Amino acid sequence: MSDPRADARFLARNAAAVNPDGGLEERLATAAREGRRLRVKLGIDPTAPDIHLGHVVVLQKLREFQDLGHQVVLIVGDYTARVGDPSGRSATRPVLTAEEIEHNARTYQEQAGRILRDDPELLEVRRNGEWLDMPMDAFLRLARIPKVAQLLERDDFAKRYAGQRPISLLEFVYPLLQGYDSVAIRADVEIGGTDQTFNLLFGRDVQRAEGVPEQAVMTMPLLVGIDGSQKMSKSLGNQIGIGEPADEIFGRTMRIPDELTDQWASLLAIDLGDVPAGDPRSRKRALARALCDRFAGAGQGEQAQEAFDRLFRDGGVPEEIAEHALPGDPVLHLPALLAEAFGVSRSEARRAIGQGGVRINGEVANATNLDVDAKDLQDAVLRLGKRRFVRLVTPS
Amino acid sequence: MSDPRADARFLARNAAAVNPDGGLEERLATAAREGRRLRVKLGIDPTAPDIHLGHVVVLQKLREFQDLGHQVVLIVGDYTARVGDPSGRSATRPVLTAEEIEHNARTYQEQAGRILRDDPELLEVRRNGEWLDMPMDAFLRLARIPKVAQLLERDDFAKRYAGQRPISLLEFVYPLLQGYDSVAIRADVEIGGTDQTFNLLFGRDVQRAEGVPEQAVMTMPLLVGIDGSQKMSKSLGNQIGIGEPADEIFGRTMRIPDELTDQWASLLAIDLGDVPAGDPRSRKRALARALCDRFAGAGQGEQAQEAFDRLFRDGGVPEEIAEHALPGDPVLHLPALLAEAFGVSRSEARRAIGQGGVRINGEVANATNLDVDAKDLQDAVLRLGKRRFVRLVTPS
Repeated sequence: MSDPRADARFLARNAAAVNPDGGLEERLATAAREGRRLRVKLGIDPTAPDIHLGHVVVLQKLREFQDLGHQVVLIVGDYTARVGDPSGRSATRPVLTAEEIEHNARTYQEQAGRILRDDPELLEVRRNGEWLDMPMDAFLRLARIPKVAQLLERDDFAKRYAGQRPISLLEFVYPLLQGYDSVAIRADVEIGGTDQTFNLLFGRDVQRAEGVPEQAVMTMPLLVGIDGSQKMSKSLGNQIGIGEPADEIFGRTMRIPDELTDQWASLLAIDLGDVPAGDPRSRKRALARALCDRFAGAGQGEQAQEAFDRLFRDGGVPEEIAEHALPGDPVLHLPALLAEAFGVSRSEARRAIGQGGVRINGEVANATNLDVDAKDLQDAVLRLGKRRFVRLVTPS
Repeated sequence: MSDPRADARFLARNAAAVNPDGGLEERLATAAREGRRLRVKLGIDPTAPDIHLGHVVVLQKLREFQDLGHQVVLIVGDYTARVGDPSGRSATRPVLTAEEIEHNARTYQEQAGRILRDDPELLEVRRNGEWLDMPMDAFLRLARIPKVAQLLERDDFAKRYAGQRPISLLEFVYPLLQGYDSVAIRADVEIGGTDQTFNLLFGRDVQRAEGVPEQAVMTMPLLVGIDGSQKMSKSLGNQIGIGEPADEIFGRTMRIPDELTDQWASLLAIDLGDVPAGDPRSRKRALARALCDRFAGAGQGEQAQEAFDRLFRDGGVPEEIAEHALPGDPVLHLPALLAEAFGVSRSEARRAIGQGGVRINGEVANATNLDVDAKDLQDAVLRLGKRRFVRLVTPS
């Protein structure tokens, strides 16, 4: 029934690369011949449970494998998470407890369940503590596999080594452990972002050394965040979480540069087919609506669009407005913020507030309480008088 | 009673280095203050149990610590030996079994017992399997300590990396494990050859990271072998084993270049005090006698010297004679060997044997059995007629 060549071509259509060349088709053909499902691995990091559109790119790809009858294996990196950040960059970040990891893993799984099919034939969730808690001599035998020069070729290691920034031995151990995950679960295919290419390919080396068939590696392009320049990431604040309200999803999607619309649609598998290619604005609005419908619920796209239009278009807010970085304090004094953002004096700012001439997201600012919770200002549009606007952003 | 400064000066007199500067004195003073013995660590490799004079240099140093009342801790690297050669250079060398390691460790200990005092207050023997068989998460925590750049500074790693010769991850793990040995046994001092400097100093890093006091590191110069150029090593065939017969010890010692005599005497703690410095030959003979007395038994030096003189001086054998490399075969055909060694024909050689004109170590060669066990020819002097000599050596 299934056609390995056609399936491989379909699955690879929006991928950055498949390694080795023809490897996916070979795995598909092998599985078909053996009358079994492929096992398609994704490693997930239980320290950052909130799924954003950047994660959706790979989850969506996994869903496509499921729709073709294959089995997704999510590997929760619980064991490695217990050890903490191998780079040691976050010296202050506490090592997670088993409970926190378990909680995060469940959160991730719930969220991923909006994209993946939750049929046990099609979805297996494993924790790498099941096999990584191995006897030391088993580990030492594995440690013969990686070569130092090979590890130093990994892009980030090469840069840090050249820049004399420290790399701990633990960081050299992690790709080996991650590769061993592929041995333990007998992965046929592993999926990840292009930033994982080295680690995913390295899994093949570990599989070969351990005498099991080597996985095909499919890497997906990294989704650029709403800043239009960097990889989507929570730490950069340029993400759209799949649990966010429709208004957020819509508004934040509308902030991406027009030229990203088609890339987002392709990577997130959203069909903009009937919206004319020559109308970038309508295409972006269609994308934003589709994302709302998908993650906030059917029909949410239209509603969010109407609210957006009320606030920004009918409310006279221009679509391109300057950004102003929020100070780091948890509570902000509104006159001071206005003074900084618009270059007015604090007394002018105070007067404007008193006269109802300052709005936060379209709401008149409260003149009786000038201290505002910074959380309520994040990504808000601040308006002074009729024509002066800034968008308050959290500095990355 | 003890004087830390004087003891430190005495112990360091023939060392290559003590690190950190003043560290040994500080450890001695601390132990004196706490009313306890120092714990002085030496790691031993149970894959090569035969002790030669190169090993004696460090064992002799440990003996000096014992004589001052301190406790030596020998660490048998049984755990790491079970994993095998980390460099992967000896792909064909079988990983040792637990029994082989145990046998080698006992052999080493017996031989070391000729140099060390075997009082349990002064000698503890431990196997690193006691603590290295640790849970993986404990190991992963340790793996944060070493930095890749630091490991790549180790001389042999630096050379191999620059020369694009592979270094396995396992090799990067070994210094960490060896360093952890110092944590496990609470070493105050660690001793080793200068080729171990990196690993020994690295033990301090591991101790510091684990919150225990850092050991002082004493490195001893490497004893040059009888070839006069390279580090003494069994694999180079330039060693003198402490279990060899007195004649061997004497004869092989006499082959070292004169200028090495004083260095050997210093490193092996042999006093040549009453032999004039201007008489290098007598000094070397005194060294050779002292080594025989020490390792083959009191009085053996004189006897070996007499036998040596009979063979070489009175027998007309010149002291400087050409060397000829023995072929690798276990049994050698004497006429063929003579033909190769002296450039005569095999029939000439056979005739000379028949006429009693061939001697092996002064003994007339047996004309009725021309096939000789290669072991009996190692380091032997082969003589053809009155004036032609070669020394048969094992190629390194």
